[in-house]
Amino acid sequence: MSDYDVIVIGCGPAGQKAAIKCGKVGAKVAVIDERQVVGGNCLHIGTIPSKTIRSAIIYLSGYHEKKMYGDNYRVKENITSDDLLYRCNRIIRREIDVIHSQLVRNHVDVISGHGHFLDPHTMRVEDTVGTEDYTAKNFIICSGARSYSHYNPPYDNVHIFNTDDILEMRYLPKKLCIIGGGVIGLEYAAMFSLLGIEVHVVSQYKSLLPFVDRELIEVLKGHMVRHGVVFHMEEELSDIHVAGPKDVRATTRAGDELQFDMMFIAAQRWGNTNTLNLSAAGVEVEDKDYLKVDSNYKTNVDHIYAAGDVIGFPSLAATSIDQGRKAANAILQIDDIPYEPLFPYGIYTCPDISMIGESEENLKKAGTRYETGVGYFGDTAKGQMTGNSDGMVKLLFDPEDHRILGVHIIGFESTELIHIGQCVMINGGRLDYFIDTVFNYPTMAEAYKIAALNGFNKLKVSMPRELTTTS
Amino acid sequence: MSDYDVIVIGCGPAGQKAAIKCGKVGAKVAVIDERQVVGGNCLHIGTIPSKTIRSAIIYLSGYHEKKMYGDNYRVKENITSDDLLYRCNRIIRREIDVIHSQLVRNHVDVISGHGHFLDPHTMRVEDTVGTEDYTAKNFIICSGARSYSHYNPPYDNVHIFNTDDILEMRYLPKKLCIIGGGVIGLEYAAMFSLLGIEVHVVSQYKSLLPFVDRELIEVLKGHMVRHGVVFHMEEELSDIHVAGPKDVRATTRAGDELQFDMMFIAAQRWGNTNTLNLSAAGVEVEDKDYLKVDSNYKTNVDHIYAAGDVIGFPSLAATSIDQGRKAANAILQIDDIPYEPLFPYGIYTCPDISMIGESEENLKKAGTRYETGVGYFGDTAKGQMTGNSDGMVKLLFDPEDHRILGVHIIGFESTELIHIGQCVMINGGRLDYFIDTVFNYPTMAEAYKIAALNGFNKLKVSMPRELTTTS
Repeated sequence: MSDYDVIVIGCGPAGQKAAIKCGKVGAKVAVIDERQVVGGNCLHIGTIPSKTIRSAIIYLSGYHEKKMYGDNYRVKENITSDDLLYRCNRIIRREIDVIHSQLVRNHVDVISGHGHFLDPHTMRVEDTVGTEDYTAKNFIICSGARSYSHYNPPYDNVHIFNTDDILEMRYLPKKLCIIGGGVIGLEYAAMFSLLGIEVHVVSQYKSLLPFVDRELIEVLKGHMVRHGVVFHMEEELSDIHVAGPKDVRATTRAGDELQFDMMFIAAQRWGNTNTLNLSAAGVEVEDKDYLKVDSNYKTNVDHIYAAGDVIGFPSLAATSIDQGRKAANAILQIDDIPYEPLFPYGIYTCPDISMIGESEENLKKAGTRYETGVGYFGDTAKGQMTGNSDGMVKLLFDPEDHRILGVHIIGFESTELIHIGQCVMINGGRLDYFIDTVFNYPTMAEAYKIAALNGFNKLKVSMPRELTTTS
Repeated sequence: MSDYDVIVIGCGPAGQKAAIKCGKVGAKVAVIDERQVVGGNCLHIGTIPSKTIRSAIIYLSGYHEKKMYGDNYRVKENITSDDLLYRCNRIIRREIDVIHSQLVRNHVDVISGHGHFLDPHTMRVEDTVGTEDYTAKNFIICSGARSYSHYNPPYDNVHIFNTDDILEMRYLPKKLCIIGGGVIGLEYAAMFSLLGIEVHVVSQYKSLLPFVDRELIEVLKGHMVRHGVVFHMEEELSDIHVAGPKDVRATTRAGDELQFDMMFIAAQRWGNTNTLNLSAAGVEVEDKDYLKVDSNYKTNVDHIYAAGDVIGFPSLAATSIDQGRKAANAILQIDDIPYEPLFPYGIYTCPDISMIGESEENLKKAGTRYETGVGYFGDTAKGQMTGNSDGMVKLLFDPEDHRILGVHIIGFESTELIHIGQCVMINGGRLDYFIDTVFNYPTMAEAYKIAALNGFNKLKVSMPRELTTTS
């Protein structure tokens, strides 16, 4: 007889929710995690710390207030790494308690240690004190992802970090190099530039975040350049080394030597599958150590599922939660309320970006007719009064029936604002919604209204005349 | 022949939108305003300045950061009235330009001066240089409202102000008395208390804002008391006078003399109809000088309409805009897209309050069955990381079909967050929406999810088991 109905590997957002779901319906379930405490990368090195640091930097740097009180405005003159990390530890401790009590309340056994498969139904868990074997009828692999770079520089966690180790940072650099122009690289580049740090972003690719609307990327890039970020696109560095205290050197393709006082590597993420001995369970591993799953989050082995960052894109806490629950439902054969497939994507740069639905590029590829409507934050009263005037709402809609096809927002708190567009889209709503609905005044929601009026203006069809000029 | 098809009296939000609507469809239209510049009370003394001052205070006082960095945390040590008023003038100037160009672009004549009726179709306008008469087929009265108090204290705009004159303030008080526990009084009390000013609120009534959910009012009151606000409920002052520099005295019902260094009167609002000579046009005036209108915003006179604060509750910029457009549509006999009647109500206290749909009190009165679900901001990751943990989302829903009946939120940016609940309600959505939908993480939208799960828990019906415990 098996010890467990379900063993969940990894206790990040996907693993937590998968385990809780199993526990709630009375399945015997354990979650195994390498860390002594619950939470996964999301809590310990990923989403939670990075968004907490971001929140501290936005405040301490006087980000919004510069527009009002001048460029030299800053809340705290000498911002230290302690200022930034102070609240991280506090929040992490609190979240550990919250998550742990949720697991316990739902009868989930929490096992610390490194797990690997001995056979398709047996997992050996090793920790500092010993070894124990557990069996289960089913497994859900939620082991997350790790930073990977072909550069493989001499990490010392003083001068050269990968982004997973950023909480080890003990001083703030004056000149920082970030290798990688993906979401993580850009989030850190944007926030550190607000502190007046000279940030250099090195990317081997021609463009940033190819899945994001090009117009939004232009706004982001422009904003970051104004805050002193230097982009080195289609560039690769070599001979990365620490030449002395606060002295990191690297050589460009053209042979120039660059000097920084700190370097973050935020190049790629690979799935955390390499130490699970998956071959003993017969699970096939894909490119970059990711696992491939079907629509029920099942791997190629019938009783082994996977969810979260270990299966790759979109690798968001919000979607991982959803995937974890779905995988549990599939194992438990529960016909749950179907989750809404229309999920938003949030990028916590400064300003942040959020989007939902189709992109212009996808619509063009599919040959779908569409029109756009744009509303600028600077044209709203609230944008002006809060010093939050950089940003835009871009609506993509069907020019015939005015159905919303996609919403793309850049600007402070866009990750909140997107949920209005999400609700309109889920309900099959049209451009008219934003014009007919009374929003609170002053709010940023006004930008949706301006975008919708702008969209109507572009339609050269027989519209009621009073709608054809933006008022 | 009349000079105009439509004359609009007053150039606040209602008047602007009414005039623009008329101009767009080719009607000959003028807007008359006593001020030399457009914008009305909303722009010059009301919504825009008060929300701008609020935004400055929230920032300069380190409102959110106190939770993180301790109670004595403040961005700027000596905050002056100049710090607060600095950005007001800037924003007012900008908005004047925006509104003026919108009016001109839509062929609206802008006439400055004081207007009053000579007969039902003629208006005399007087300004400093002379007098001119204008005739019109129709009128829309959007003349706004004014501060009124039966106290009628000796206003000197140094020590004693009504809230319409607050931009005259030249120093910040240490001990401020606000007479009036309505929306305006509480908004100013809340924001000034953040600066460490000892604020006393005097209300003749037993409770604050009777149209707001009682639980939210308790949270607001508790929050304000913690910030040093003293409430004097069911109290009336007498013998208000200035005894010397920064020395305002008043006597309580019990005969105690109180001393303050500044006093704001924010007691009642009355309609601005007393100087329009409405009797010459046959328009009847109601209690508190308000105008009564039908569902088309028509007064008792067939060709005279009214919209905005001059018709009373709710007196919000957002609803005034809607009313102005509707009045214009009625005159122009345009069958416009129907506006959504479900509008949010926003109160910009600290923290702010917003609500939409039914209140518990109304549901009880109507004998409608309902259940509640509550989600606290402090239970969200974002609430923790941004120091924004005071607040709650309260959902009222039908216990049978789970339809959302009302949404009541207190907490920073609740005036934005309400728009998600609004969209769900407009689409007839149910509690399930908040559980099934993937929101960005971390965002405050999570509080909706927590509230929905809490609501499900309270239902002792045969729910799927996995939904009956808050995860």
